[in-house]
Amino acid sequence: MAGRTNAPGQSVSQRLLAVLDCFDVAHPALTLTEVATRSGLPISTARRLINELRDWGGLERLDDGRYRIGIRLWTIGSLAPQQRGLREAALPYMHDLFQATQENIQLTVLEDTHALCIEKISSTKAVPTRTHIGGRLPLHATGVGKAILAFSGEELLSSITRAGLARMTPYTIIQPGRLAATLAEVRKSGVAYSHEEMTLGAVSVAAPVVGLDGRVHAALGIVAHSRSAVDRLAPAVRTAALGIARWIS
Amino acid sequence: MAGRTNAPGQSVSQRLLAVLDCFDVAHPALTLTEVATRSGLPISTARRLINELRDWGGLERLDDGRYRIGIRLWTIGSLAPQQRGLREAALPYMHDLFQATQENIQLTVLEDTHALCIEKISSTKAVPTRTHIGGRLPLHATGVGKAILAFSGEELLSSITRAGLARMTPYTIIQPGRLAATLAEVRKSGVAYSHEEMTLGAVSVAAPVVGLDGRVHAALGIVAHSRSAVDRLAPAVRTAALGIARWIS
Repeated sequence: MAGRTNAPGQSVSQRLLAVLDCFDVAHPALTLTEVATRSGLPISTARRLINELRDWGGLERLDDGRYRIGIRLWTIGSLAPQQRGLREAALPYMHDLFQATQENIQLTVLEDTHALCIEKISSTKAVPTRTHIGGRLPLHATGVGKAILAFSGEELLSSITRAGLARMTPYTIIQPGRLAATLAEVRKSGVAYSHEEMTLGAVSVAAPVVGLDGRVHAALGIVAHSRSAVDRLAPAVRTAALGIARWIS
Repeated sequence: MAGRTNAPGQSVSQRLLAVLDCFDVAHPALTLTEVATRSGLPISTARRLINELRDWGGLERLDDGRYRIGIRLWTIGSLAPQQRGLREAALPYMHDLFQATQENIQLTVLEDTHALCIEKISSTKAVPTRTHIGGRLPLHATGVGKAILAFSGEELLSSITRAGLARMTPYTIIQPGRLAATLAEVRKSGVAYSHEEMTLGAVSVAAPVVGLDGRVHAALGIVAHSRSAVDRLAPAVRTAALGIARWIS
């Protein structure tokens, strides 16, 4: 972004968006210097853009001098339509699953080549996971990711295998052929598993939310401690995903 | 915004944010012309900024040519911290209330001089309301608004009475003295009502979520059909709000 300084109009917009891009689930609060470093902008430019975003309400300054995303961006972001109807349809099912299991319940959608978590219900008793609302999960290493991948066509699979299947744990499937075979299983059974492939000690089962158009809108998953737990929970997850699909259709 | 064209650096950022400001709950999808009109920008400028936001993922183009907020802004907005912990603490209580009542359950926070709805659970059977996630409600005409207002100090009350108390229905309290007396009642009882003051046919009861610091973080409300329903539900709403307050403290 910092390189595109020749077209003044274009570069200012892109620089402003580059400042926003610095923030993510792993970096929810940043200093001015961190924003400058992550965006590649000079400190003075970063300071000016941060101040403009602050004036607007898109960023807030913490007492320790760091900045974080402000309520204005939350309000505008909440207008994004993918989540609105889907979340409202899914939440009752998610809470039923949570009440029945007390485990982590996750709702994800496809964003580029990741599963984006748009809703999560958990408790302090559930197994710790790496998932946060707004966070991204690899498609090949998670139950929700594989549920989306299995019903999304060859092109997406080719694209993520071309990019390389990152090894998250010793159990992650990193061979394209083995992944393809697993996805064929998912299409047959309607549920996808991750056996400690994303996080050691965490096992998941997920089912796709498929619309009447045959398109996969989302995946609903449970993360639990043991393989026997997720085996037992698979029918519940699949039933809830079918219920959500019927609701949004 | 359109007038500030003399400082090129400043104006581009502000114009970009002005494009985003065109979208709200009442206007989730807009044509290029509508964006230009609402932002006061020339069509050519609006088109360029829309395209930059599209390239980034902040806007999406619909088949009918209109634009709407994209998933990229949702992801960044979800990093706003006010909502994160509060929503996660509140959702289980909200679902319990919903299961017990099947009525509209709302969670709101103070944003400037409005109650901003950050979570809502409803069903097709519940009474229709004007509330959407990300939508703003007047403080003086709603249960959740009065619950926040009653515990927010004199300054906020002065500011909204100075701006004028808009009449939403024939039952809206528009006299500052009567509003102040109502708020004194709310401080005594711990619950706030709206008796068709926002929407004819809709009655609400709400309770503040007050932290250990004495600050009101949010208000939890139920909107129902009848005065007797909300009278009966008041203790449940208050109990749930106390539970949320304990959870976040």
